[in-house]
Amino acid sequence: MLSNTRKVRIEWGDCDPAGIIYYPRYFEIFDAATAALFERALGITKFQMFSKLEFAGWPLVNTHARFLKPTRFGDDVTVETTVKFGRSSFEIEHRLSLKGELCAECTEKRVWTVRDSQGQLKSHPVPDAVLAKFKSP
Amino acid sequence: MLSNTRKVRIEWGDCDPAGIIYYPRYFEIFDAATAALFERALGITKFQMFSKLEFAGWPLVNTHARFLKPTRFGDDVTVETTVKFGRSSFEIEHRLSLKGELCAECTEKRVWTVRDSQGQLKSHPVPDAVLAKFKSP
Amino acid sequence: MLSNTRKVRIEWGDCDPAGIIYYPRYFEIFDAATAALFERALGITKFQMFSKLEFAGWPLVNTHARFLKPTRFGDDVTVETTVKFGRSSFEIEHRLSLKGELCAECTEKRVWTVRDSQGQLKSHPVPDAVLAKFKSP
Amino acid sequence: MLSNTRKVRIEWGDCDPAGIIYYPRYFEIFDAATAALFERALGITKFQMFSKLEFAGWPLVNTHARFLKPTRFGDDVTVETTVKFGRSSFEIEHRLSLKGELCAECTEKRVWTVRDSQGQLKSHPVPDAVLAKFKSP
Repeated sequence: MLSNTRKVRIEWGDCDPAGIIYYPRYFEIFDAATAALFERALGITKFQMFSKLEFAGWPLVNTHARFLKPTRFGDDVTVETTVKFGRSSFEIEHRLSLKGELCAECTEKRVWTVRDSQGQLKSHPVPDAVLAKFKSP
Repeated sequence: MLSNTRKVRIEWGDCDPAGIIYYPRYFEIFDAATAALFERALGITKFQMFSKLEFAGWPLVNTHARFLKPTRFGDDVTVETTVKFGRSSFEIEHRLSLKGELCAECTEKRVWTVRDSQGQLKSHPVPDAVLAKFKSP
Repeated sequence: MLSNTRKVRIEWGDCDPAGIIYYPRYFEIFDAATAALFERALGITKFQMFSKLEFAGWPLVNTHARFLKPTRFGDDVTVETTVKFGRSSFEIEHRLSLKGELCAECTEKRVWTVRDSQGQLKSHPVPDAVLAKFKSP
Repeated sequence: MLSNTRKVRIEWGDCDPAGIIYYPRYFEIFDAATAALFERALGITKFQMFSKLEFAGWPLVNTHARFLKPTRFGDDVTVETTVKFGRSSFEIEHRLSLKGELCAECTEKRVWTVRDSQGQLKSHPVPDAVLAKFKSP
């Protein structure tokens, strides 16, 4: 299970004076979609990940997004999220569509982190237990 | 049907460095809950209301909110929204709870508006067709 | 110095499809204005308050806001913020105006908190050192 | 004047439970920085551009961002924004730094649009009057 699909309602407050989605809101949607993918695979929320796993967050290294068609309030869009794991980083791809038509797509590169003995974030290999959950459906 | 209940997930991005919801996000949740109440009663989205009804928005006159217990990312909260109609205004009450415990409550006073011949917003009686939909279940 | 005045630019991304400010953004502006008042009085940022004072945040108990006139992107509004201290709580008032005309006003009741020995937030008298800074200009 | 530099305060409400900026807020900062660049060159706000120019917005085609070092609330960051014009599109680059150290950088490709006779957005060459303002300091 290396992918997840979810419905998201675009709200009035996500839109700007042009009547269409204000694009920074897409990144909020994508960030939540990344968390939802892990929640579905691991069976625990991101909140629980902090206490139950060697995990201190997945800071973003870079993100690239393309916007093909605007969406607007009242639209129920579909976000399909997939992941490819590296050693201590992973790549996420989001495809956001409306009625089957691709409206936006985005890639993210993130790093798995833990806290070192001084409490500072450092990158760390994605735990095997996490990888295993993504492999077995 | 003068009330509506919906589930909302509190997301990582809704929370602040204290690890709990950043309270302006509650107002985004409440604003969307107001729209959801009307959508459920009328059977059309807020987007459709602009073209199908005498309607140009429901600007807020005032809002009062009390915060009783914090919520945090991963929480699936319940928002129960009720409305009382005046002539050209209406009052909304939202009760947000987690596992049956009230966490926040909010009232809003809003005005029903239409556009006058100059395109300016002016208050207007809530249309009878709208009131009727709220009365008949 | 129990009050502070600052200019804030309303941005495109603060506004909704009606072309006016989306009201939850006002609460972001007010929350930042509260922090700015303390920064001006204490001479340190909120970030520094956590390490230099007995301080673990000022959670909101309630807030009441009235909206009199809309503002829109490109507007440079003025926010005047005043505080009245109780023992372990304080009340904030914000008045947001454009070209001398009041557009929105808001009150907040907040609690001064510290962490107890278990790391939980608990209310605590506002430190004398803080009160003193507000009294002497 | 093809570049603009501005200071931006990172606020408490821009930050997430990790205590650092929640990255979608960077895109809000960058979007406002794009508007600020044009405001500085043209001498009018984006709001005024809609009435004074052949202009109906500059929708984003794509954006790429790299995050090098986190910033946190209380940080006063510097955003340096530059533009390169094509015929009906333009590329924006933002460099966000703290105390001289680059923390994030972002490119945007946007399209200049006007409304056609049906009121729909269509791309349009960037007006000569706009280009001239950017050329003469």
